[in-house]
This record gives sequence, structure tokens and C-alpha cells, in this order.
Amino acid sequence: MVLPGSASGRLVICGFGLIGGSIAAGVREAGMAGAIVGVDADPVVLDEARRAGLLDGAGWPADLGPDDLVLIAVPTLSVASILEALWDAEQGLLAGGAVVSDVASVKQPVLDAARDICGGLPANFVPGHPIAGSERSGVGAARADLFRDHRVILTPVAETAPAARQRVAGLWQQLGAEVVDMAVDEHDRVLAMTSHLPHLLAFALVDTLGRSPEHEAVFRFAAGGFRDFTRIASSDPVMWSDIFTANAAAVSAVLDRLDAELAELRGLLETGDRDGLRTIFARAKALRDAHVTGHAGGGHE
Amino acid sequence: MVLPGSASGRLVICGFGLIGGSIAAGVREAGMAGAIVGVDADPVVLDEARRAGLLDGAGWPADLGPDDLVLIAVPTLSVASILEALWDAEQGLLAGGAVVSDVASVKQPVLDAARDICGGLPANFVPGHPIAGSERSGVGAARADLFRDHRVILTPVAETAPAARQRVAGLWQQLGAEVVDMAVDEHDRVLAMTSHLPHLLAFALVDTLGRSPEHEAVFRFAAGGFRDFTRIASSDPVMWSDIFTANAAAVSAVLDRLDAELAELRGLLETGDRDGLRTIFARAKALRDAHVTGHAGGGHE
Repeated sequence: MVLPGSASGRLVICGFGLIGGSIAAGVREAGMAGAIVGVDADPVVLDEARRAGLLDGAGWPADLGPDDLVLIAVPTLSVASILEALWDAEQGLLAGGAVVSDVASVKQPVLDAARDICGGLPANFVPGHPIAGSERSGVGAARADLFRDHRVILTPVAETAPAARQRVAGLWQQLGAEVVDMAVDEHDRVLAMTSHLPHLLAFALVDTLGRSPEHEAVFRFAAGGFRDFTRIASSDPVMWSDIFTANAAAVSAVLDRLDAELAELRGLLETGDRDGLRTIFARAKALRDAHVTGHAGGGHE
Repeated sequence: MVLPGSASGRLVICGFGLIGGSIAAGVREAGMAGAIVGVDADPVVLDEARRAGLLDGAGWPADLGPDDLVLIAVPTLSVASILEALWDAEQGLLAGGAVVSDVASVKQPVLDAARDICGGLPANFVPGHPIAGSERSGVGAARADLFRDHRVILTPVAETAPAARQRVAGLWQQLGAEVVDMAVDEHDRVLAMTSHLPHLLAFALVDTLGRSPEHEAVFRFAAGGFRDFTRIASSDPVMWSDIFTANAAAVSAVLDRLDAELAELRGLLETGDRDGLRTIFARAKALRDAHVTGHAGGGHE
């Protein structure tokens, strides 16, 4: 196998955290040819990546050509500053025609920033988002199989060159992922529901309990259910404050709906309406049992 | 090993679901002597328990003596009806002095019902609650190791005979559990926070998403984080409608505090206060990392 596109092309990964590191590890494990070049603001991170055997070079190359693939794997709100540094239609590093993609969890602000910075969306820019991750962060948590059997959503727009989209899709497929195209606004709405709101609830719950005068007993008597429920509250605060800032409108909209649901449940609680509660719980259980496969297996209270 | 108390005593388990069945399986695996007698309203359940080798007999014995131990393992609001059927100070099945315990997730209503029914709390009644379970229910999900390295909370009161408490504690310890005593009201408040509120949020989230016009895409693009976060929404609706009805006041109180936290987060979202969000997320992450051990390991978005 070769890196999608060309045997001579480089894969430049900017932001060598969990996602960037896992892409590099997956490329190595798949035996794809082509050099991996790491870019990160933190030299310690690049040292760690080098020791893990994930790098053939570090720092931006002097030039990039059509065979090169740049993956920007920094927190959502930092993508713009990377594009800004790379972009100049005549003299910038992307002027040579490299394909560029990103992994940000919210797509509209990235597209807006790219349009602003580049004066229109470059044909070689392919917005992407792997639906995989971990509550652990950093290159030390990288895993070659992180994307295997996971979905990667691409949100190409009218300006996106099909060949560029195909290059990016090919990389993810070689890492074992299923690539799905989606409209930008649908992506941001759906992820607000499946990912962003659950993270907000997990952070909110843990912080609420931590503020309780009984918080020592609370954490002492937490069992497996609590551990699984709050696992995502151990996620990276920088990454997630970016995501919520970037997708505030969609998250607020679904939070409105959750508030209405909680108000309904509170009403049933306060009137002691056991049948009403049971109806909602049974509906939720049926939905989850039908649509979400896989048991975490841990016991809980 | 023998069943705590006496080699000749019987262990009568009333309600042969996940908890009752796991107690029986644990007693078998530990090789404790003494007959296991199963009682369940559903004869199919008892057949299944018998086929699994968990029963020496079925149905209430003609009489019970001080060597016998009765564990009532039915949903919280059904404990009272079982006590009602057993209790008559002169002629009831419990008149012979058997030790009785329960496993209900909310303790105050069980104690109130026992006081009402028995005209004061019987000395041989030991309220208990194993902090272990699964989103799966029924005897088919029973596991001999369900309680191993889990905590079991007992809430003995002034009337409780120390010897009765010791019998019940001894059973749980032989199943590998750590037994902890707690005041009734503290138990119900702490469990409202660590267990009941997370379940309410999981049910509420899944039901909210299920009502969305985009719910097919939502469930299709849910990854490991969502699966773990909502695992408890697959729990038994009957058990949980009982728990919320029984612990409505404590759950409402902690839901108030969560509402306040969500309102604060919403304010930060709407003003784009990335630093404010990051501060709360970092605090929650630090709390969870410090207090909740164990990784579920699954990837998420």
C-alpha cells in the first residue's frame, strides 16, 4: 500500500495529539509508503512522537506539492490560525496544490474561516471529522486502530474537488474507517445531539456533584454506571470548550429540547406519576436497545 | 462455608431477577451450605432458575425459623406488599424469627412501609442495598460475581438487632462485597446523586433524541461515548419508575442543582465565553480523574 495519491507524497500532520498520533500510528501499521511529517507547537510532543516511531520529519516542509496531504488535527477554533499561516494564493505553502483536510468536531465555523481566509473555499480543502476518540488525550494515548470500524464524516461542498475528497477518503479507508458524506449543517446538528450534548451533561453532572457538601460520599459510592456515564467528563477541556463555542447555537437548540423533557419528567416525579415515568423509560429503553449495539459490560447500581 | 448463621438455615430469595439470581449464583459458587428457596410471582422465572441449578425449592416454606434468612429482591415499591403478606406478629411467616433483608435502591419508603405494616420496625429486619447491577435484568443476566468488590450499604436503625445485621452483612461479605453502614436519609440523598440522577439524564437524553425528526441519523452516528453514556437508559423501566417515585424529593433537589449548572453553562455558551466553559470542564475533569477510577476503554467521538 502507498499513501493515497502517490508513493512519493508526504503526509503532514499538524497537531500531534490523540487524533494526529493515531492517524500516524495507523499509517505505520498499515505499512503505507510515504513520509510522515509532524508539526506541533510543542516540541516535547514531537519528541514523544519521534520516540514512538511515528515521524520521518518534523516541522513544515519548505514546499508542498499536489502529492502531499496535510491533515490539520488541532482543536476546532485553532484550525483557522493554521490555515491563515499556510494560505497565500501566490506564495503560501498551499499554493503548490497540496490536499488539505481537518478533523474538527464542528464544521461550519471551519468552513466559514476557510472562506474568509482564502477568499472562497479552496478546491483542495476537504472538511472532515472522524467519529472516534477517547477521554484520554495526547499522542501518548494514540492507537493505530482508533478509527477501525468507526465512521468518518466528510462535508465536501460545491467547491470541493472530487479528486481531493477521494484522496482524503482513501486515507481514512486505509485506516479501517467507513467514510460518509454529509451536509455541513446536518453534521453540526447531529453531532450536537449525539456527542456535544452528552459531553455537556457529563461535565455538568460531575461539576454539580463536586459542588455538593457530600461530594466525598458521592464519589465513594459511585459504581460502574456512574463511571461509564461520566467517562466523557474526563475529556480534554480545551478541545471541548472550543467545540461548544463553535457549535453553540445547535447545542442550545437541543439543550432546549432536553430541558423540556426534564421539565416533563420533573412534573411526573412531583405528582408521583409512576406510570407516566415508566412509559417514558420504556420508550427510551426500546430506542436504545434497538439502535445502540454493544455492552460496556461493567456493572452499575 | 455455610450460610451465615446456621448450616441448617435456608436462604429464601423473594424476587428472582438479576439481583436475586446473582445472590443465589454467588452462594452456589462460594459453596455455602444451606438450601436456596426461590419465590417469584412468575413461574417461568422459577423454572429458569431451577434449570440454572440455583434452586433447592420454590415457594414460601410452611414456616420460617431464626436460622432462616429471607431476602426480598423485588422492585422498591413492591417490598411493602411482600412484608404485608409475611407479617402477622402472632401467626405470620416471620413470627418464627427469621432474619429479613431487602435490596431496594431507596430506603426511607421501605422503612416507613415496614413500620406501618408491622406497627414498628421488627428487630430482625435489616434494610440493605447492593451497589451493583446491570442495565440487563432478569435471572438470565445473573452473575455469581456481580457483588464481588462492590459495596453493599446497610441502613440499620435503632430497632435493628445487631445479630440480624451481622447475619445479613456476613452473606454479602461471603459474596465478595464490602459492607458499609449508612444513615437512611444520607443513603437516599447520595444515591439520588450518584445513581438516580444519571439514570434520569440517560433516559431523558435518549427519549429527547428519539423525538427528533433526525433520530435515524442521530443513532447511526452515535459512537462509543454515546453508547457508554446511555447504557443505563437500557435499564428496567419498572424498577426505575419505582425508584424515582420512591425518591422523588431527593431527586428533585439534585435536579434543581443540575438545572442551575446547565443554566450557567447555557449562559457561557450564548455569550461565547470559551474561558468560562473551559474552567468548568477542567474542574469536572479533575474531579472525575481524581475520584473515579477505571476506564471503560471504548472509543468515542
